[in-house]
Amino acid sequence: MLAALKRHRGALLMGLIAPLALAVAAVPGTPGVADLQGFSARTAALQQRLEQRFDAALSAADLRAWMQQLSAAPNHVGSAHDKANAEFILQKFREWGWDASIEQFSVLYPTPREEIVELVAPGRFIATLREPPVDGDATSAQVADELPPYNVYGADGDVTAELVYVNQGMPDDYKELDALGVSVKGRIVLARYGGGWRGLKPKLAYEHGAIGCLIYSDPRDDGYGAGDTYPRGGYRPPDGVQRGSVQDLTLYSGDPLTPGIGSTAGAKRLALQDAITILKIPVLPISYADAGPLLAALGGRVAPPAWRGGLPLAYHLGPGPARVHLKVQSDWQQKPIYDVIAKIRGSEEPDRWIVRGNHHDAWVFGAADPFSGHVALMAEAKAIGKLAKEGWRPRRTLVYASWDGEEPGLLGSTEWVEAHAAELQAKAALYINSDMNSRGTLDVQGSHSLQQFVNQAARDVQDPETAGSVRTRAVAVRRVAAYEAGRAFDTGGDVPLGALGSGSDFTPFLQHLGVSSLNVEFHGEAEYGVYHSAYDSFDHFRRFVDPTFQYGVALAQVVGRIVLRAAQADLLPTAQGDFADSVAAYDDEVHKLIDGMREKSRELDTLLDDGSYRFAEDPRQPRAAPARADEVPNLDFAPLDAAVARLKTSAAGFDAAYARVAMAGGPANAARLRLNAALGGLEQALTDPRGLPGREWYRHMLYAPGLHTGYGVKTLPGIREALEERRWSEANRYIGVVAHSLNAYSERLDRAIATP
Amino acid sequence: MLAALKRHRGALLMGLIAPLALAVAAVPGTPGVADLQGFSARTAALQQRLEQRFDAALSAADLRAWMQQLSAAPNHVGSAHDKANAEFILQKFREWGWDASIEQFSVLYPTPREEIVELVAPGRFIATLREPPVDGDATSAQVADELPPYNVYGADGDVTAELVYVNQGMPDDYKELDALGVSVKGRIVLARYGGGWRGLKPKLAYEHGAIGCLIYSDPRDDGYGAGDTYPRGGYRPPDGVQRGSVQDLTLYSGDPLTPGIGSTAGAKRLALQDAITILKIPVLPISYADAGPLLAALGGRVAPPAWRGGLPLAYHLGPGPARVHLKVQSDWQQKPIYDVIAKIRGSEEPDRWIVRGNHHDAWVFGAADPFSGHVALMAEAKAIGKLAKEGWRPRRTLVYASWDGEEPGLLGSTEWVEAHAAELQAKAALYINSDMNSRGTLDVQGSHSLQQFVNQAARDVQDPETAGSVRTRAVAVRRVAAYEAGRAFDTGGDVPLGALGSGSDFTPFLQHLGVSSLNVEFHGEAEYGVYHSAYDSFDHFRRFVDPTFQYGVALAQVVGRIVLRAAQADLLPTAQGDFADSVAAYDDEVHKLIDGMREKSRELDTLLDDGSYRFAEDPRQPRAAPARADEVPNLDFAPLDAAVARLKTSAAGFDAAYARVAMAGGPANAARLRLNAALGGLEQALTDPRGLPGREWYRHMLYAPGLHTGYGVKTLPGIREALEERRWSEANRYIGVVAHSLNAYSERLDRAIATP
Repeated sequence: MLAALKRHRGALLMGLIAPLALAVAAVPGTPGVADLQGFSARTAALQQRLEQRFDAALSAADLRAWMQQLSAAPNHVGSAHDKANAEFILQKFREWGWDASIEQFSVLYPTPREEIVELVAPGRFIATLREPPVDGDATSAQVADELPPYNVYGADGDVTAELVYVNQGMPDDYKELDALGVSVKGRIVLARYGGGWRGLKPKLAYEHGAIGCLIYSDPRDDGYGAGDTYPRGGYRPPDGVQRGSVQDLTLYSGDPLTPGIGSTAGAKRLALQDAITILKIPVLPISYADAGPLLAALGGRVAPPAWRGGLPLAYHLGPGPARVHLKVQSDWQQKPIYDVIAKIRGSEEPDRWIVRGNHHDAWVFGAADPFSGHVALMAEAKAIGKLAKEGWRPRRTLVYASWDGEEPGLLGSTEWVEAHAAELQAKAALYINSDMNSRGTLDVQGSHSLQQFVNQAARDVQDPETAGSVRTRAVAVRRVAAYEAGRAFDTGGDVPLGALGSGSDFTPFLQHLGVSSLNVEFHGEAEYGVYHSAYDSFDHFRRFVDPTFQYGVALAQVVGRIVLRAAQADLLPTAQGDFADSVAAYDDEVHKLIDGMREKSRELDTLLDDGSYRFAEDPRQPRAAPARADEVPNLDFAPLDAAVARLKTSAAGFDAAYARVAMAGGPANAARLRLNAALGGLEQALTDPRGLPGREWYRHMLYAPGLHTGYGVKTLPGIREALEERRWSEANRYIGVVAHSLNAYSERLDRAIATP
Repeated sequence: MLAALKRHRGALLMGLIAPLALAVAAVPGTPGVADLQGFSARTAALQQRLEQRFDAALSAADLRAWMQQLSAAPNHVGSAHDKANAEFILQKFREWGWDASIEQFSVLYPTPREEIVELVAPGRFIATLREPPVDGDATSAQVADELPPYNVYGADGDVTAELVYVNQGMPDDYKELDALGVSVKGRIVLARYGGGWRGLKPKLAYEHGAIGCLIYSDPRDDGYGAGDTYPRGGYRPPDGVQRGSVQDLTLYSGDPLTPGIGSTAGAKRLALQDAITILKIPVLPISYADAGPLLAALGGRVAPPAWRGGLPLAYHLGPGPARVHLKVQSDWQQKPIYDVIAKIRGSEEPDRWIVRGNHHDAWVFGAADPFSGHVALMAEAKAIGKLAKEGWRPRRTLVYASWDGEEPGLLGSTEWVEAHAAELQAKAALYINSDMNSRGTLDVQGSHSLQQFVNQAARDVQDPETAGSVRTRAVAVRRVAAYEAGRAFDTGGDVPLGALGSGSDFTPFLQHLGVSSLNVEFHGEAEYGVYHSAYDSFDHFRRFVDPTFQYGVALAQVVGRIVLRAAQADLLPTAQGDFADSVAAYDDEVHKLIDGMREKSRELDTLLDDGSYRFAEDPRQPRAAPARADEVPNLDFAPLDAAVARLKTSAAGFDAAYARVAMAGGPANAARLRLNAALGGLEQALTDPRGLPGREWYRHMLYAPGLHTGYGVKTLPGIREALEERRWSEANRYIGVVAHSLNAYSERLDRAIATP
């Protein structure tokens, strides 16, 4: 953005551009000139007036009222209130002038019929598995329609066995248990939340031979170790439980029975036992009030220092003497889900879609998750509807979606994307997601070619708490944090976009179809320790998350600008140089990864050869030395490096041509049409129909949720995960696949600017 | 050592040295050749036979029996059992053939008459301030002769005020409290142990306006957060209290009333109010059982994340609503202390002393602190006495000292050093200290010219738990730790010596007189959370610290070798190159320190100028931006850099000459006499009679306990602390003073090897 801004300013000084934009109210920290990517000075000025009208239609009171209503009763899939909410949202969209309807799918959605967690030796303790009402929280007493805390898509089972504490139950934790001589085979594991996606905990436990899994929220992480507990503060009270899905979404998201296709009434479904995203052992989430007696009953060795939590006891690993009885029996039923889809048809390019979504289902009441983001989406839709009623029409088609079934596994978005895949690949230019939102700092993840575009939107939105823009604040927070941590001092520049992993509804768009996507949120200043519990309520939200709802309004302003600019720009917004830089950085990372692995392997060999591990061991606390690993070969990265170099050249050429065409303004012409046609589905060039190893549903060659991180992203996943798992020939193969995708992408850029 | 070893091996291969040493039993990992610094091949072989006889006289059963007897009753200064122990030790030394006597001093030693800690609002809670008996601990029920837990040399007082939690009560904690708008003025602070020496906590509290101070042991640090608590494990039980001195030993150690002179019966004493090492406010140590209700009663803001401990509550800062009543009244009496001093006169150089010490007073029973080290000293003395009885005589004089009054402030050692200062400066070549010892890894701190010497001793002692030497193990532990932490991989080499700060009896020798000193210990494998409590008992020690007493024997073997080699070597052991390298590293550190400060100041100015701190602030959690600091000037380090360069040259010349003379062997000659004369008091060249700023008692220009770290060392303290406190002209002045000392040192090296 800096380079473009300088060019623009230079043109202004030379009198080439009329200083129209100066009439636009300047946002503090901006030059007062409407520098909008993809717009000419003339269209930018029009756009800014449109955005002023959009802003004027936003109201914090609306957001507050909608949230209170939407979160008034439990909203899990299949609940009466979730369906009523879908109908209310539909009615609102229609009232606001949108062409809206509900699209229904039928999904497998097990709900618990019986749950038991009890310590049977030494002594006896029966876990309550219930979240009692708390003072001053209006909905917490309203438990009639709630499901008990559970992990959806765990297996049924009735097991009794010794307990083992496995820390967060991630791969490194099992390596440490191996070194300490503790096996989970035939046992029940107790894992603490954190360190990676919850669904990996029972999956890895099963892979290591465990027959059951309990997951608890340690008070160090989001209870009294984080701050005052609810209702004194916003953190997790002793009985608070984090529910959540344990579906194996690293393989595919959506209905476990219909991978790759929409789960319409007549869709062909897998047999239950063939659904590989359903786990094989029973699993339940518990509170720290319920986990305390189990941990206290464990013997065996004391857990390593980093594994110890906030309960007032010495954490032991077991196995035993604690023996636990775990029983889960569910109703394995099909349930309907209700996606609300609303459109305003584009006047000039109706077959180019800007898609915007947020889910509406919740684990219980769901004030923060999902309604904090959802009410912003509604505010945008209301304001856009008002513009439309006043005669405005978007150039491109707007599609607003309120997804159902996100919590169990991105069901609503995935099934819709799978049902409309061909149309979306032809038409969807951009998907913008939100989910939870709170007081704090803007954070956007997504396709790196959109970094400048997003920063321009953030530049033009006033922060509710300070005198700067939300961009100014996001930069300041990063710089102060870097300074205080003694890290390399960040001298400013754009707020970088993080890469997208998973955990919300962008996944099917981006990683299955290759539609450029963004996820937008504010966070950092909430007292929020009630994630996925019955205490994520309106009363909690208004006290501890965003009391004035002004950050909900700010989210609507940022996303509204992204939507409206993407819909209206002469040229679809982009800066390919940023994308090329990011890819080059990823390339650099995988080079460093394998070089570092080679170095570490050699160091380890030295320590094993000279007996250092043997000499260093405490015989009273024996710990096996790490296993000797195979040698790290020299892989041929040349195809990838060459593709990255070509991408940089193509991106630079493209950006220069783009700037020329954008600056020219005037009516649509052949160059503009060609650029927009190229940009519309450009990111699909980064997908490969064969997908990632063992999970062909994930087709994007740059971004995927990590097999061993879950929500957390792996960039260049085909290469990076193969390296991490020491599958050298697979890494070699994916160097070729990724290089091929990048070359296809560069080819599209080159063709778009070639003289016809 | 590596270079010298190679030379030695080369000479052996060329047949220049008879392979006599091969007859010596080879310690695993050593070449079987007696490479002993300062010895010729012939004298080295003799020495190794002597050491075999020394080893044969050591017995773990002796150590166990002595510890059980010495720790059978409370051993604080003034207690009957402490005096009886001194007499027992005297009797033993005499029995073993040493010329031993008790040297008595009279010191100010206040003991508590009344102690009260109570929460008076909200609610009421009276702290027990007592350590009850625990099952299976024979001495814990024996409370009759105990003093209650207290901090000696705190002030008397009777105060009631609001409580403030100040984390560890260190300088950075007060900066954070300032930023958060919390003042301790007129209030009582509650500080957690750790982060720096305990005496700084009430001192800094007083300097910030507090009127009382409580110090508690958080269970995260040495209670259940560290492991199972006593008696299930070795960590601090809920009622365990860490006693300790709060005398301001950063100014001087020893009797507060007799700085710089021995506190003999007739010594001139300061008036109590003029004794600047006595604190100005009342202070008491408390257990976490007593601290819990106080912390739970605090309101105000939640403490920053790093300040939160292991109690099951959200840590708040206050001030209030908790109000605390704190009362301490002591008897301010003179008490006798009993140093046991034992000598064996040297046969050839009687006026060159090798001094070895460990204290015998304890806070209560003192099994680990001090008797774990003290019984090793006794074993050495018994074995040396046996050699002497068999007709052997040391070349140089051995002085073994069992100090009294170390716990309140290094009283016994300091008074003895001050009383004998002139004689020690003339005669003491080396002081070797020990204190606590446990299963684990060898760790030695001290004068860097002794690094190779110490490593040779460690190379020749078998580790009790593994197949290697204690040096092999110390190297292995460091390398494995570096590898596992992902730090730069250490490829081997010597175990480096740490620099000495304070906290034990080496301080008066090294930092007041400039006598080269070492502190030797094994640590790392004890379950030890009972420091300075009544639970530091024989039963605790035999279960959780060193059950077989083999690490006590290993300590005696390492220190015995150091003592015997220093006493017998043809040339006093030294390698000046190591010293020069260390000083060069310190020089590099102070350069980096000021450069880093300049960089940080500029970064901070940028963040203050552009409003980043303002934009980043959470208005609901206001936190003041750091204050703008004065500009960091460019100091002239040239005199220091030049002195370091000269030192490197002089050290290299000296080491080459030393190697020639050592290799030559044969009867004493002029070159040997000149080198030994130079080495005897060499380190005194590093002292300056004007001492350090504001604390002239500390005269060593390379090492001092930090004014704001206490026990923790500051190297180049005159320069480093001036820089840290931004006293630029003082830093400039000390650059000159340190350079002068280093040049004087180099001059002595040069003179020692100059052709006469």
